[in-house]
Parts: sequence; structure tokens; C-alpha cells
Amino acid sequence: MANLRNTIPEKTIERLSEYRRTLLSCHKQGITHIFSHVLAGIHGITAVQVRRDLMLIGFSSDTKKGYDVKVLIEFINNILDSEAAMNIGVIGMGHLGQAITKYFNSKGLKLRITAAFDIDPAKVGSTIDDIPCYHMDNFEDVVSNKDISIVILSSPTKVVSQLVIPIINAGIKGVLNFTSAPFNVPQGIVVENYDITTILEKVAYFVKENEENNNN
Amino acid sequence: MANLRNTIPEKTIERLSEYRRTLLSCHKQGITHIFSHVLAGIHGITAVQVRRDLMLIGFSSDTKKGYDVKVLIEFINNILDSEAAMNIGVIGMGHLGQAITKYFNSKGLKLRITAAFDIDPAKVGSTIDDIPCYHMDNFEDVVSNKDISIVILSSPTKVVSQLVIPIINAGIKGVLNFTSAPFNVPQGIVVENYDITTILEKVAYFVKENEENNNN
Repeated sequence: MANLRNTIPEKTIERLSEYRRTLLSCHKQGITHIFSHVLAGIHGITAVQVRRDLMLIGFSSDTKKGYDVKVLIEFINNILDSEAAMNIGVIGMGHLGQAITKYFNSKGLKLRITAAFDIDPAKVGSTIDDIPCYHMDNFEDVVSNKDISIVILSSPTKVVSQLVIPIINAGIKGVLNFTSAPFNVPQGIVVENYDITTILEKVAYFVKENEENNNN
Repeated sequence: MANLRNTIPEKTIERLSEYRRTLLSCHKQGITHIFSHVLAGIHGITAVQVRRDLMLIGFSSDTKKGYDVKVLIEFINNILDSEAAMNIGVIGMGHLGQAITKYFNSKGLKLRITAAFDIDPAKVGSTIDDIPCYHMDNFEDVVSNKDISIVILSSPTKVVSQLVIPIINAGIKGVLNFTSAPFNVPQGIVVENYDITTILEKVAYFVKENEENNNN
């Protein structure tokens, strides 16, 4: 099974997460079945892509009525979720860190932010939406006590290099990096660099290209 | 030139944006030259990838001393940036919208957030870091008066479908969508769906996979 799962491409994993949010919303509205082309239309992709993704995870369905929404949600849950809830820490409680914490807390996900970290005396010891903020000096202890496996980096970019050693020493297994500094760690730690500036510059680039092509 | 540029893949555009931030930071520190393998190491990729990206944009360099940092920054500027600054509007001034606005304002980019939009009477008419917040009813007028070409969506997910028509009517050319709802618009508008939940669920999935593989 581990080997089968390992063959699922990153982009499929992203889409499964997206399908699931759509399916959960359908389920809430009392929709029991959905056709692949409807699911595809909502996500701006082709029905072939949806069917290919679901084939990759071994899901087959009664095509007369479309996919059973509830069954498909359960199926995706089994692929994406751990049996135990995964605990997440946020490093850096500036505007972005606070926004991310409040955003996730309101989502009812299986992934839960359970601790925040900062070095600012005004923030350490306070709580943000019931999440306690600890000093980075206690990072390793808190990670161990709270069984945290993933951290979100929303610290100032310039301190990122100082965070590498504490993150490795604490045994963190996944890093979602929102800063502008690339985060390089040894193999075995999952890192996703997710810099907002990069994506905005990309959108701006393709807007410019479209304009230039229209002017030609 | 337009045709040459159109052949640049999305991932290369993302990396060019990332290289530029590293190069700007080098320049600030007085570093005048950088080797491809050093730039590659910072970004956790291979030197071959860096050289391939720069070849794609037609940049060649004196390899004895490495790339000239200042020249390469200028070269990337010419590829990525518009001649005029691009103006950006943010729709939805909740925690995430405010965090994004404050984050970008402090970056000194050529892309500038010049207007915010909301429907909450407590926010409309206020300013956030000197950015005025307008009512969505005035969206089209403000976009036209302020020459806004890109919007960032940080509204509640459930209102996204109501934003499609105003965004098309106002002539917006690019959308960076932070909500959990896919944003589908006609061709000709650049859309980047950038849902934080998806990325976090992806990191969690690969963390789980690593653990399962280690236990086998």
C-alpha cells in the first residue's frame, strides 16, 4: 500500500484536497451524487483529469448517478488523513502568523494548530484564539510535549536561517514556509516553500504577457 | 520577443522571482558575483536547473567569476516587470486580507496594493497601512480610477461566486485567489488559485507517507 501511495503525484494530492472541500460543501447542501464532469467544471479542469485522479487512488463508482459524495469523501479521507490528528506549530506571530492561525482554527480540519512561537515579550505568554504563544527558547520542549509534527514558518525572512537547527533538533517532519527565504533541510523533512510574493509576481508576469500579445 | 517569452514555463517564472529576491539580498550585502551552484544551493536545486532557467531567458555570463549580480537583477527585472507599476486591489479585509496588505506594503515591490474592498461598515471608509477600504458597490469605479489590473481575493469562501461578475465587468486582468473556492472565469483573465489549506494538507500527506515508509 505504501508503494501504491508513493506513486500518487503531488498535483493529484493537491487536487484530492480540493475535491474533498467541494464534496464536503455538496454534502452539507444535501447533494448525494456528483458526476465527474460537474466536479471537473467546478475546478476548471477536464472530467478526464478527475477520473484519472480517482483511478490513481483506486476509486471506482456507479457512473449512472455519478460518484456517491459521502463514499468518495471517506475514500479521500483514507488517502489524505492520518489516523491520529496531526498537531501543528506556527513560528512567528506577526500579522501573517496570526491570520494563518485564525484562518485554520475556523476551518474544522483534522490538522490543528496547537502552539505558536515568537520571541517578542508582548506575544509570548499570550493566546491567539486560545492557542498559547511560547518563547522560541522552549521550542523543543513544547514540540515534544504537544506532539507537534509540522511547523508553519511565518517569521521575518531574515531569521529563517536561525530556525533550521531548532527545527531539525525538535524532530519536526514537515515545514510549510511562508517566508521569502528558501528553507533547506536534510532529506526526510517535507518542505513546501510557499512564498506569496512569488505567486503574485507570476500572476503579474502573465497579465503583462497577455497585454503584450493583445497589442501585437 | 513576445513569442520567446511565451515559451518560458510557469515554474521558471516562479524561480526567476525567487532568484531575484536572493540576488537583491546579495546585492544589499555587497556581493557582486555569484556562481550558479551557489545560487542553486540557496534554493535547494541543481546548478543545471539554474543555468537552464537563465538560458531560457537568454542570459549568458562570465563563468570565471560567476554571474554579475547587478546585471542579472536588471535582466530579470526586464523579464518579469511591467514598465509601469501594476496596481492591485484586495477584496476582503478580514485577518488574511489585512495580513497580506501589511506584508506586501513592507516589501518595496513594483507591485503595489492601492485599494481594499469590503462590505463591512466597520471597515469601509477606514484605512489599513494608508490603503483606503472601499465598499464593493464602488468596485468598478475604484478599479477604473486607480487603474487596478490585479485583485487578491481574501474574502470569505462563500461569497466568491458573487465576485465573478464584478471582476469581469471591471476589466480585471489577473486574480490571485486565497479562498477555498475555485475561481472560474473566461479565458484571458490570469487566475492563480492559492489555497493555504491544500498546501498544508499536502505537507501532512507526505509527512504521513514518510512515517509509513519508515515503519515498513
